[in-house]
Amino acid sequence: MIRKLLIANRGEIAVRLIRACSELGIISVAVYTDADRHALHVKKADEAYAIGPDSMGGYLSIHRLISVARAAGCDAVHPGYGFLSENPDFAAACAARNLIWVGPDASVIRRMGDKVAARRAMIEAGVPVTPGSEGNLEGVTAALEVADCIGYPVMLKATNGGGGRGIRLCEDAAALEHNFERVRSEATRAFGSTEIFLEKAVVNPRHIEVQILGDAHGHAIHLFERDCSVQRRHQKLVEIAPSPQLDEAQRQYLGELAVRAALAVGYQNAGTVEFLMDADDSFYFMEMNTRLQVEHPVTEMITGVDIVQEQLRIAAGEPLRYEQSQITRRGYAMEFRINAEDPKNDFLPSFGRITRYFAPGGPGVRTDGAIYTGYTIPPHYDSMCAKLICWALEWDDLLARANRALRDMGVFGVKTTIPFHLAIVDHPTFRSGHFDTGFVAAHPELTHFPGKRSDRQLAVAVAAALAAHHGL
Amino acid sequence: MIRKLLIANRGEIAVRLIRACSELGIISVAVYTDADRHALHVKKADEAYAIGPDSMGGYLSIHRLISVARAAGCDAVHPGYGFLSENPDFAAACAARNLIWVGPDASVIRRMGDKVAARRAMIEAGVPVTPGSEGNLEGVTAALEVADCIGYPVMLKATNGGGGRGIRLCEDAAALEHNFERVRSEATRAFGSTEIFLEKAVVNPRHIEVQILGDAHGHAIHLFERDCSVQRRHQKLVEIAPSPQLDEAQRQYLGELAVRAALAVGYQNAGTVEFLMDADDSFYFMEMNTRLQVEHPVTEMITGVDIVQEQLRIAAGEPLRYEQSQITRRGYAMEFRINAEDPKNDFLPSFGRITRYFAPGGPGVRTDGAIYTGYTIPPHYDSMCAKLICWALEWDDLLARANRALRDMGVFGVKTTIPFHLAIVDHPTFRSGHFDTGFVAAHPELTHFPGKRSDRQLAVAVAAALAAHHGL
Repeated sequence: MIRKLLIANRGEIAVRLIRACSELGIISVAVYTDADRHALHVKKADEAYAIGPDSMGGYLSIHRLISVARAAGCDAVHPGYGFLSENPDFAAACAARNLIWVGPDASVIRRMGDKVAARRAMIEAGVPVTPGSEGNLEGVTAALEVADCIGYPVMLKATNGGGGRGIRLCEDAAALEHNFERVRSEATRAFGSTEIFLEKAVVNPRHIEVQILGDAHGHAIHLFERDCSVQRRHQKLVEIAPSPQLDEAQRQYLGELAVRAALAVGYQNAGTVEFLMDADDSFYFMEMNTRLQVEHPVTEMITGVDIVQEQLRIAAGEPLRYEQSQITRRGYAMEFRINAEDPKNDFLPSFGRITRYFAPGGPGVRTDGAIYTGYTIPPHYDSMCAKLICWALEWDDLLARANRALRDMGVFGVKTTIPFHLAIVDHPTFRSGHFDTGFVAAHPELTHFPGKRSDRQLAVAVAAALAAHHGL
Repeated sequence: MIRKLLIANRGEIAVRLIRACSELGIISVAVYTDADRHALHVKKADEAYAIGPDSMGGYLSIHRLISVARAAGCDAVHPGYGFLSENPDFAAACAARNLIWVGPDASVIRRMGDKVAARRAMIEAGVPVTPGSEGNLEGVTAALEVADCIGYPVMLKATNGGGGRGIRLCEDAAALEHNFERVRSEATRAFGSTEIFLEKAVVNPRHIEVQILGDAHGHAIHLFERDCSVQRRHQKLVEIAPSPQLDEAQRQYLGELAVRAALAVGYQNAGTVEFLMDADDSFYFMEMNTRLQVEHPVTEMITGVDIVQEQLRIAAGEPLRYEQSQITRRGYAMEFRINAEDPKNDFLPSFGRITRYFAPGGPGVRTDGAIYTGYTIPPHYDSMCAKLICWALEWDDLLARANRALRDMGVFGVKTTIPFHLAIVDHPTFRSGHFDTGFVAAHPELTHFPGKRSDRQLAVAVAAALAAHHGL
């Protein structure tokens, strides 16, 4: 087994990884920048090392991370998500220093990170993809030719893109001409590559993704799907497992497709195969994420499998602990990304000191967070500071539980997305279980909510005053 | 459905009940004494009413509780556990005022509270009981005669007792003579009755109890068993579901026995049938608890059923939502009672201000608590201030998770039983899954533990210092 693990990340995912280490008897080694010296992952890890004052550069410096790993005597590195998690150079650099990389091989990361190569691999494996350019586009003329052939609307995408950036929808030729250079320059800035391609756009699809696990012994299984259709500007906000929009036949078909995709590329460790589901209930491969996902907890809640522990076992060379037939699911789970943002003010980041934090509790509630009373959220990083995950046997019970848990969670001192999530959970479209990626944009009332929490607090205050008055 | 519920309790169970109300759309009404005006249940409830300065009397005053329920327009009352939860007069008083009592009928509470009557009912239903006196003992002479007949050791018990009080083990006739008047006076003081009886003592049994649900339509089901053998001075400390000491045949037999017991007495609502399991793996009825148990969450974790919600539905007259065949279980769950006590100092209560509270999180962890950073635990009540419940698919994984979650939970400012629970979880006898009620008493080393948390904190400090020194 792994003896000592470098956690090459911060925030809630670093805390999540430390917890898995603790349960497996692995010594956890955290790193932190100056801005993060009071962060929870630093307090929770067995050891913690400063990596300097550069707030962004720290977690992005392959050199420094590997130096710490070697100096601390680590034998493995877990990259979490974001930062360097899908950087094949980091994976290769770890392997070159005899550090176990907790993730798939650098060559697989590279291949799946190249969206054109990934599409080709899927076509070869018999996994359906949307019609698109056979490869990278030379220029706008080539783009227009391909688009003419497959029909509008089309989606222009950075070949090495991800995370919802470097993507532009083009309704017609004029839009394509207009957007071509913009996406190219975005791709250059964000991903260091000028390569872009296009594919037929599925308008307002449902985003369905399958969690897979593959080991070093040629076995792969899936852990069912997640529905991540609730998005705002291509960013996932609420994730659900299983999807309330699939029937059992679709679920089984998609799971088998994902395993086929994983086996076709020799995938080892945890990964996610993302699909688009169009209005006709057809599925198309979108991309493969070669790392742990933010939303992995909903899968853990319905299957009972600890995905991070499995990652560590697989990385250590152990065979999968489960056959496909041993993976069962129960109930529904839902994850809410609690971001330090003001949903009433166009989701403006709201960093600062958390004056009071009340963690939610009770049945069917899990929190994965990096916050505590007195913690100051630094402005340098992602605004997501916690995840609230709820579970219940039935969909309707889950909606009620989610509403309760969101109210139960108290984060004071900064604005959060909690009131926005409450509006989502109360929305009839969401409650029906049928929604697509256009849902949030189509309902501006989702960000014009009354102050529910204050109403509640007011009721308590009034009741207490009445009670005092009546001498009860 | 119930519209507005009086929560006739305090602490973590009041918070638990409020959460269930919130999920079912029931307005929750809390009550609080002066000592509890900053308590979490007051903050969480929809309404909260003061019931005066009398810190103990408040929650024990049938008159005041019913006055609040009526003044606030409640249509139902949930007594929680402890306080008046097994008081048939309170149940009857509620019924007389048209308040729905969330629990079994007053007559059932009265019958099961009378241990001699309960034994008789079980004998009639064909549920095995230990040999004992046919009824209450007139005096010490009668006691000695019965004991001679069934053989020593015997257990002297208050007929109306419960909660581990009013019980004395007698190894021989001399001990029986010595203890008779002591138990009688304890019974008088604690339960207001001089009646005592005796039964054959099962020395160091395993304590196995079955959760049952019965509705108003003649149906009853069980939700499998809990193992509460880890006790200290007859107080449960760690509860487990399912018991790692039962095989499937025993599990099914015990579940069926419990349902038979429930049906025999016309039991409605949630209840628990407690059994002793002796060294020969024979089971004997011990008592029936006619209320929600402290340890109900472990059953919720393995079955997915929300027992408090079911209580409220049953009380409203709804039929059971589940057939027996629909109740499935998955994995193992373990509950730790986090008491504000100093385990290094004979479990002396340690009330006071919680200067910092870090709730544990991550996979398989649930907290039901009444504490928060800045909360002052008042000295008037039970020392249990939170419950930590852990779940995992496999027993060994659960042990690792429990160890991690106990370290993950940070309660500062007061002493707690967390270090004691860590010692339990690390103990080879406990880890083996085979232990009886004598386990804690037989292992004094359980309270002579090293300061694990400090070791860990020290390691972090040393690592940070080294890192700074090496300029990492």
